[in-house]
Amino acid sequence: MQIVSLTTDYGSKDYYVAELKASILNGKNDFYIIDISHEIDRFDIVQAAFFLSNAMPSFNEGSIHVVAVNCNYKRKSEYICFEKQGHYFIGPNNGIFSLIFNDLKSEEIFVISPPDNGNLSVNSIFSHAAAYIGHGLPLAEIGEPVQHFNTKLVIQPVVTSNQIRATIIHIDHFENVVVNLKKDQFEKVRNDRKFELYYKPNDPITFLSKDYGDVAIGDALAFFNASGYLEIAINMDKASSMLNLMKNEMIQINFY
Amino acid sequence: MQIVSLTTDYGSKDYYVAELKASILNGKNDFYIIDISHEIDRFDIVQAAFFLSNAMPSFNEGSIHVVAVNCNYKRKSEYICFEKQGHYFIGPNNGIFSLIFNDLKSEEIFVISPPDNGNLSVNSIFSHAAAYIGHGLPLAEIGEPVQHFNTKLVIQPVVTSNQIRATIIHIDHFENVVVNLKKDQFEKVRNDRKFELYYKPNDPITFLSKDYGDVAIGDALAFFNASGYLEIAINMDKASSMLNLMKNEMIQINFY
Amino acid sequence: MQIVSLTTDYGSKDYYVAELKASILNGKNDFYIIDISHEIDRFDIVQAAFFLSNAMPSFNEGSIHVVAVNCNYKRKSEYICFEKQGHYFIGPNNGIFSLIFNDLKSEEIFVISPPDNGNLSVNSIFSHAAAYIGHGLPLAEIGEPVQHFNTKLVIQPVVTSNQIRATIIHIDHFENVVVNLKKDQFEKVRNDRKFELYYKPNDPITFLSKDYGDVAIGDALAFFNASGYLEIAINMDKASSMLNLMKNEMIQINFY
Repeated sequence: MQIVSLTTDYGSKDYYVAELKASILNGKNDFYIIDISHEIDRFDIVQAAFFLSNAMPSFNEGSIHVVAVNCNYKRKSEYICFEKQGHYFIGPNNGIFSLIFNDLKSEEIFVISPPDNGNLSVNSIFSHAAAYIGHGLPLAEIGEPVQHFNTKLVIQPVVTSNQIRATIIHIDHFENVVVNLKKDQFEKVRNDRKFELYYKPNDPITFLSKDYGDVAIGDALAFFNASGYLEIAINMDKASSMLNLMKNEMIQINFY
Repeated sequence: MQIVSLTTDYGSKDYYVAELKASILNGKNDFYIIDISHEIDRFDIVQAAFFLSNAMPSFNEGSIHVVAVNCNYKRKSEYICFEKQGHYFIGPNNGIFSLIFNDLKSEEIFVISPPDNGNLSVNSIFSHAAAYIGHGLPLAEIGEPVQHFNTKLVIQPVVTSNQIRATIIHIDHFENVVVNLKKDQFEKVRNDRKFELYYKPNDPITFLSKDYGDVAIGDALAFFNASGYLEIAINMDKASSMLNLMKNEMIQINFY
Repeated sequence: MQIVSLTTDYGSKDYYVAELKASILNGKNDFYIIDISHEIDRFDIVQAAFFLSNAMPSFNEGSIHVVAVNCNYKRKSEYICFEKQGHYFIGPNNGIFSLIFNDLKSEEIFVISPPDNGNLSVNSIFSHAAAYIGHGLPLAEIGEPVQHFNTKLVIQPVVTSNQIRATIIHIDHFENVVVNLKKDQFEKVRNDRKFELYYKPNDPITFLSKDYGDVAIGDALAFFNASGYLEIAINMDKASSMLNLMKNEMIQINFY
């Protein structure tokens, strides 16, 4: 049973997700569909890339990941597919995939040709590509290599020898605060030194925890989470509202 | 693999949808269930009919569509099923289906007899009917033809030779504004004339777009959407709040 | 096809549920997953127990119920599994299961040993246990019997010979008000007497209805719902906000 994941900004109330699922199963009816999220903020391909790249390692090789974000049908839109790290990806050529993989080459990305039935809807094109991949057909025959692969820049931390300034990129359901800093980058700059992590006018956090249980209930902590990102949290409470930390704000780490 | 779609007003938080799904799979365990929506406004069969009739064309023939809206169990309630356009429908006899099909005949609609296990819950009755259909048994044997098929009136646009007054029937997740006017009705009245579409005290829209990309980002447009309805939208923004257009309000189109 | 149900406090927006599902299907890919709820209030194992115990009777024997509530990975956390009433349960040893079954014995509950791949994430442990059960292997070999089974107390009604004081434990999507009183306990105290059910400064309800249709639209009623609990509702309206009844408040029933 092959898995198809869906990441969309369609929302959960309307019938749009159902149309997409029914279309995909019309193309090949033994897929198992897993929703990654349909609550991506409208048109927010950065958030979509963050969600999909974090969720992807939990999926088996051979999984097909469909992204429909900022994907309203326009006649000029291009839809692409490619294979990477044993997974397949289908979605719009709007930059979303450049935010997940920084080494994609145009010649390995294919523009999905319209299906034989002439239906040019996004759902029809995605269903066509998923069925094509599901049947094990070679990607190179689904369409021409992309002429212009759209890329977007990922916001990176600002790094000097003694300081990292990073950005809050996500507040999750538990109001944990996720920062765009990965462990290896942190450790490289840290170089076994002490550090002070400043967030708002609070006392800095000066050590890394391993998990929530390392501090008392109600205390703030910082650790690298399961997805590899720096996370500021409060054990059993809501860091974002308690510490007044919002998406897109900066945090600063000084090493000494 | 046969698909069962669900359209309910049960909400996504409670365990009610899970009970319904488990019941349906108890009846026949190789169905594939697709959620159309569980966020139908409480008791709102008009919205349910709008969602299901729009989503239905994406489903394969043979699909079974279960509707549980305004469907709290009452001993006097009747649950019905029928086949139409190659699809099967199961739900309450409360008018919902008359809003989807205007040519249903009582003799082709059957009241679902209670299952042999005597369980009279809505879930049990729906599970019984879905399994029955899934096994390919004739609908005429699931129960007696309905004596009184409940019907509701669909709100229609008010049409004169030079004017259409139509109603906003849905605001979607993207805050696109959907109007109860279909393309053929519009074109018939238009008869190749010019038009002015008035919505609130704004400058009228005087041409139809093909898709969102036909106007600049931030500009309003009108077009007939994938479901065939007139839609007022803003390219990459929220028409409902930006233009202050709410459900049930009127828009007016003058032809000249 | 074996069913795995999921009850979590992960929310529906993030990618956490997708990770859990993908992990479970990685372990054994022919499960059919049914979401009970991902909107359990953060860390609220009482609500999770309420949802799962109510939904469970709709599931076939052999179903596997995974609970991930108040389950953030901590190195000291223990994850357990057991079989009860023909169903299988997997989740944290945090008291949730003592709220569903009051007669669980430590010797029939097993601490899930880490999987061979050494992955200690919650998802990996749950996936390992589900696959293990799905393959029909004996629970006793999945790990050692639990040393200390965590238990929590269920809030019970306060009962005297002529009075029951009970607590509102849930407000559902329809704003029906659910009280922690089951029919048999009520009838035992009632003993064929009359009663007055007081809720806020309203006129008491003095009779039990069978279903919503027993009173006029807009009128309040009380009945024992499909899950066996006392429910205070308004026919076709929202009891919680109309009657100003909130979770954790008391209602009082006098018998005479």
